[in-house]
Amino acid sequence: MTLPKSLPGMARWAERRHIIDTKSLSLEEIECIMTVAADCKRLHNKSTAPLTVLQHKSIANLFYENSTRTRSSFELAARKLGASVLNLDINSSSSTKGESISDTARTLVSMGVHAVVQRHPHSGSAEMLARALGNKVSVINAGDGWNAHPTQALLDLFSMREVKPSVLGTKVAIIGDIMHSRVARSNIWLLQKLGVDIHLAGPPALVPRHFDQLGVVIQKRMEAAIEDADFIIALRLQTERQQQGLIPSVSEYKSLYRLDHERIRNAKSDVKVLHPGPVNRGVEITEELLDDPNYSLVSTQVTNGIAVRMAILYVLLGSS
Amino acid sequence: MTLPKSLPGMARWAERRHIIDTKSLSLEEIECIMTVAADCKRLHNKSTAPLTVLQHKSIANLFYENSTRTRSSFELAARKLGASVLNLDINSSSSTKGESISDTARTLVSMGVHAVVQRHPHSGSAEMLARALGNKVSVINAGDGWNAHPTQALLDLFSMREVKPSVLGTKVAIIGDIMHSRVARSNIWLLQKLGVDIHLAGPPALVPRHFDQLGVVIQKRMEAAIEDADFIIALRLQTERQQQGLIPSVSEYKSLYRLDHERIRNAKSDVKVLHPGPVNRGVEITEELLDDPNYSLVSTQVTNGIAVRMAILYVLLGSS
Amino acid sequence: MTLPKSLPGMARWAERRHIIDTKSLSLEEIECIMTVAADCKRLHNKSTAPLTVLQHKSIANLFYENSTRTRSSFELAARKLGASVLNLDINSSSSTKGESISDTARTLVSMGVHAVVQRHPHSGSAEMLARALGNKVSVINAGDGWNAHPTQALLDLFSMREVKPSVLGTKVAIIGDIMHSRVARSNIWLLQKLGVDIHLAGPPALVPRHFDQLGVVIQKRMEAAIEDADFIIALRLQTERQQQGLIPSVSEYKSLYRLDHERIRNAKSDVKVLHPGPVNRGVEITEELLDDPNYSLVSTQVTNGIAVRMAILYVLLGSS
Repeated sequence: MTLPKSLPGMARWAERRHIIDTKSLSLEEIECIMTVAADCKRLHNKSTAPLTVLQHKSIANLFYENSTRTRSSFELAARKLGASVLNLDINSSSSTKGESISDTARTLVSMGVHAVVQRHPHSGSAEMLARALGNKVSVINAGDGWNAHPTQALLDLFSMREVKPSVLGTKVAIIGDIMHSRVARSNIWLLQKLGVDIHLAGPPALVPRHFDQLGVVIQKRMEAAIEDADFIIALRLQTERQQQGLIPSVSEYKSLYRLDHERIRNAKSDVKVLHPGPVNRGVEITEELLDDPNYSLVSTQVTNGIAVRMAILYVLLGSS
Repeated sequence: MTLPKSLPGMARWAERRHIIDTKSLSLEEIECIMTVAADCKRLHNKSTAPLTVLQHKSIANLFYENSTRTRSSFELAARKLGASVLNLDINSSSSTKGESISDTARTLVSMGVHAVVQRHPHSGSAEMLARALGNKVSVINAGDGWNAHPTQALLDLFSMREVKPSVLGTKVAIIGDIMHSRVARSNIWLLQKLGVDIHLAGPPALVPRHFDQLGVVIQKRMEAAIEDADFIIALRLQTERQQQGLIPSVSEYKSLYRLDHERIRNAKSDVKVLHPGPVNRGVEITEELLDDPNYSLVSTQVTNGIAVRMAILYVLLGSS
Repeated sequence: MTLPKSLPGMARWAERRHIIDTKSLSLEEIECIMTVAADCKRLHNKSTAPLTVLQHKSIANLFYENSTRTRSSFELAARKLGASVLNLDINSSSSTKGESISDTARTLVSMGVHAVVQRHPHSGSAEMLARALGNKVSVINAGDGWNAHPTQALLDLFSMREVKPSVLGTKVAIIGDIMHSRVARSNIWLLQKLGVDIHLAGPPALVPRHFDQLGVVIQKRMEAAIEDADFIIALRLQTERQQQGLIPSVSEYKSLYRLDHERIRNAKSDVKVLHPGPVNRGVEITEELLDDPNYSLVSTQVTNGIAVRMAILYVLLGSS
């Protein structure tokens, strides 16, 4: 079994070289990833030896924020395609050595690395990196501040489409801390291209009013967001939001926004719940709902993360 | 040269799926590991290219405690069998991100990882993990609190048997901080199954009296424990035991319990000394004795650690 | 394309087993590395799948100081030759576990590792390690305190010779914090063997007077060091030197020693500027000069670092 050599959209991906956000993706490019990812999932499930398609490529995971989960997902995806993976966890101590993001990445390029997967706390850092590196290497944004997390949005879409092959006209509710969420932003940009009806709800201080300019519906009451929803995306609540005065308390958050079997009753009967992880069990969602395979897509999302990241690496580095 | 495809005990290992402690191992399972490990040692010594037997498997090293030595041993063992290794050092900062042990491991399972090698400061955490993950993946306990460190005990046994092929009726002295030692507990359970006569000695506050219920002999004087011993296992002394008031001082510890050439004179003339490492040179054992190849098995234990861990990975993941 | 099997100097490298400094290298050994590195660079540029020449070898990166850049360079070099790489970042917390450098390395040797690449803050630690390990393994010094960083000096030489195939009689200026620089020391020893005329300049407290005993010229004025130079090596300034009272201030350092287009006007017209990295942009060198491909060899040095480290690993481990 092999990966497709030619698909509509592939030439565009090779030309694009980077994935920085979902905002700029064309429908053709999105469909291309979905198709390749489906093949990648089959390959990954078969639990075979690593492929050789990227065996001449080196990929650097450049993580300025701790993220066991996302780093591991990219690492496994890259290895499955045969690539060599270099892990660079840049903590504060080494970045105080005074080297800029772009100098660090330029060093990797000079070492012959073919792609840099970067996570960084500053919004816009992935874009900046891609500009600095030009066409010499692929930049894959694994999360930049509040801005974007495109591979997460693509894996969310992939997971939704396994349930409902066409998402056109479906309703998606995104619940929680929208303001600080790169996952929310990337999903909004992506899903709107596909004709999804998006409703947001959450603590007022965490749902920016101007998001309605993006064409989404901001609901005052969570119930209205959830009503008739096909999918509900719960976002992670950083508990430090309480110290920042953005939510009254975690327990109040739970009483108002925690997803449970009762609260999703007015959604579609076949509603599915997603969460980008890691979940604060019992805060954004009850244990019972999280672990209920009738509703929860959370572990499926993790599996699909590997498939979608394999697809991204393949279209950026391997299909030519 | 290849690894055996069928041996008594292999079916039991495949069924068992996990290794949590030595308490539950049958004699047949123990012999199976010893046999496979002997082959693994020959393979490893030949310094050949990695095998392919586990090339379709991914193994995650999930270490909640720093351990360069044990993590490296598992990593080299897994790689030698062709497996892909994912290293996850979970320090306090990322576990404060609030994800539970079982959620982290479940995420790895959703990513398609086949075995999780876990070290964690809490006793019982490996058992808990195996319950949470069920039959979907193999859990290998690389040390859980004071409770168990089964691969260490198996490599100790393997090292003893290279010297004395039958350990039945031999005398093993375990010296030092028994109370906090998962190595001591795992060795006691394992060696008793094989008919070893076990004697413990150490600072009174560090040798729990109730251990005599396990069938071992608690000696007041180290001399009595060592007398006629075939093997002596020295345990690591955490120097913080002094602050905790469990030993009067490190220098008093040395004067009473440090192994040296003089103190082992009343052991068997061919006595061998083991230590799980890392050694506090000059505290648990003198430099001279540690580096004396006539008595010390310490570096052999490290070599055998690779072989025994290869064997464990093979019987759990690769023999079917 | 393969690497050469027999070259003058190769037998000497195999016998030597370690690379601790540049002081003890013979001209034949130096030429051997330069020749193999040229082949390695061609191989690396071709971006092929990893070679198999070291596929039966394991290499441990034992870094007691953070160094993303050097560690990655060795990792990529080793992987390109097919070796298995074990990364061990030993931070303060684990070295307080009380194991000595040589015990840690001995453990790795007992695990079957074939080479230890070590970086350590103490001068002399690489030599000490090589003595402790004897002929059982290769020790590669990746920087020990102020003492030596031989692979950096060799890659600097390689980069110079790509520009001027014979460095005999060329003039090299080394500018900045000479005192604390293992890069300066290793370059001085290496370049002098090849008949290079070396001039030093920098803040008086950071240029040890006794260096003139090494046969180099200490210049009071940077202008004199730079005049007619073929190559200028700028050294990294640790900003903590200001707190230590060794420089008046970073801004005074810049006004006196920062390289820029103006200051290099009296060097040879084809002068090239080198820096071991990471660069403090705008401190040791202006942004404009650093990024000017007519003068700056900085990114070439990074690329050549992979080639030279491949060559070192090959002659120490793979050519026999």
